[in-house]
Amino acid sequence: MTSWQDVDTYAKTWVKEAGAMIRASFSKVLDIQTKSNRNDLVTNMDKETEQFFIEKIKTTFPDHSVLGEEGLGDRIQEINGVVWIIDPIDGTTNFVHQQRNFAISIGIYENGIGQIGLIYDVVHDELYHAIKGKGAYLNDTRLAPLDHVEVKDAIIGINATWVTENRSIDPSLLAELVKDARGSRSLGSAALEISYVTSGRIDAYISLRLSPWDFAGGKVLLEEVGGVATTLRGKELNLIGENTVLVAKPGLHQEILKKYLNDGNW
Amino acid sequence: MTSWQDVDTYAKTWVKEAGAMIRASFSKVLDIQTKSNRNDLVTNMDKETEQFFIEKIKTTFPDHSVLGEEGLGDRIQEINGVVWIIDPIDGTTNFVHQQRNFAISIGIYENGIGQIGLIYDVVHDELYHAIKGKGAYLNDTRLAPLDHVEVKDAIIGINATWVTENRSIDPSLLAELVKDARGSRSLGSAALEISYVTSGRIDAYISLRLSPWDFAGGKVLLEEVGGVATTLRGKELNLIGENTVLVAKPGLHQEILKKYLNDGNW
Repeated sequence: MTSWQDVDTYAKTWVKEAGAMIRASFSKVLDIQTKSNRNDLVTNMDKETEQFFIEKIKTTFPDHSVLGEEGLGDRIQEINGVVWIIDPIDGTTNFVHQQRNFAISIGIYENGIGQIGLIYDVVHDELYHAIKGKGAYLNDTRLAPLDHVEVKDAIIGINATWVTENRSIDPSLLAELVKDARGSRSLGSAALEISYVTSGRIDAYISLRLSPWDFAGGKVLLEEVGGVATTLRGKELNLIGENTVLVAKPGLHQEILKKYLNDGNW
Repeated sequence: MTSWQDVDTYAKTWVKEAGAMIRASFSKVLDIQTKSNRNDLVTNMDKETEQFFIEKIKTTFPDHSVLGEEGLGDRIQEINGVVWIIDPIDGTTNFVHQQRNFAISIGIYENGIGQIGLIYDVVHDELYHAIKGKGAYLNDTRLAPLDHVEVKDAIIGINATWVTENRSIDPSLLAELVKDARGSRSLGSAALEISYVTSGRIDAYISLRLSPWDFAGGKVLLEEVGGVATTLRGKELNLIGENTVLVAKPGLHQEILKKYLNDGNW
């Protein structure tokens, strides 16, 4: 049987090590390539960091698989056995433009069940971590269960893109939410924004297009403090392929889904 | 004649001192009141911090005036003589919800001309500072003149509110900008977002409703690196009363104004 405590210890060590390498890279000139489009910058650090994790994992846990954003890991069709779902740098555009507000995100799943979540805000040295059933932590501080909050008192993490014409959703649905909420924010890193929901810095986070590595770590963290992560139709998140994502405090999740997203019928 | 170097030395000392008091306050329970509406939280720390600056300024520079967000300073109808335009905590909602992503903002103007700009990101200990004509700095590092960038390669600081139905602007104007840009972000503190433009972390920042204390410090900083700050109609910002604000890298400012804001005719 897998000792999650042991896996967690290794994972944390590697995340901190990778974070130190990324911080050191700021002094070098970044070799920026363009991936599928200009909004999706990728740097050599993404690839090097993913490769770093793959080598560590394959050496220490040869029967574990890796699903990574950069595609250097295994070709995975189903989440069978233990799978590390990794985004080496979530928020690459911020990484390139700001040298901050990006994170390393890792979710470790066994047969589809999240067992470990780690999100590391590299520049601010904030490590969010959780083992299923043992609570979520920000560095050494245990995070409190999330309080209930209504939309009118909530800060919603949502990018302006989702309230303008787009291919994914009628923008008027989420525009109402933005208008009714106390405020909205957009940091530009899904992993960090889900961490912010976990620590109560924002109350909900919405995206119309996320890949598993964007939310895999955050989902484990969030559920340890009573938060809810589903698609924008209220369905379970799919660990293979793209998803819409609604992450929120428990009562707020229900209010957004029912009142603004018509119970998923949109 | 006023020695701006001396004024700057005092101002920096007080800003750092106020920052330390704010950080210390995190351990206390915040006494939150509601100002004009629930989106505009105010805490006792805003008032205490503004009062702290007023006492220091009035003791050291008895002929200087103070225009502060909390209204504890002078009743000012015109910017005559030396006026300190102060936001003791810009981003109060972030201060309350996140205990980060807020700033102390100070602009010191003489007869309407900005002479000193200071914006202090209290939690991340980043002090942006400038004396007119002597360059802008982030802590001890001199900030480089801003490069040209086009909208398609730009990160725009804009809140989702401004691309939903609102009383200030037809949302379709700015929606086009959001769609064409590389990305958009919203941090929730105008002062910090203008600082981010100054340091090149984002390329432009837009708001439809700012008060002088939200941008007075940032305008001085920005102009030292060649950035441009006007209203969304391309007019000079008014230091008495509310403004729309378009802050951007030089070529980008022109592109946004011309292409998306119809040269100010909206």
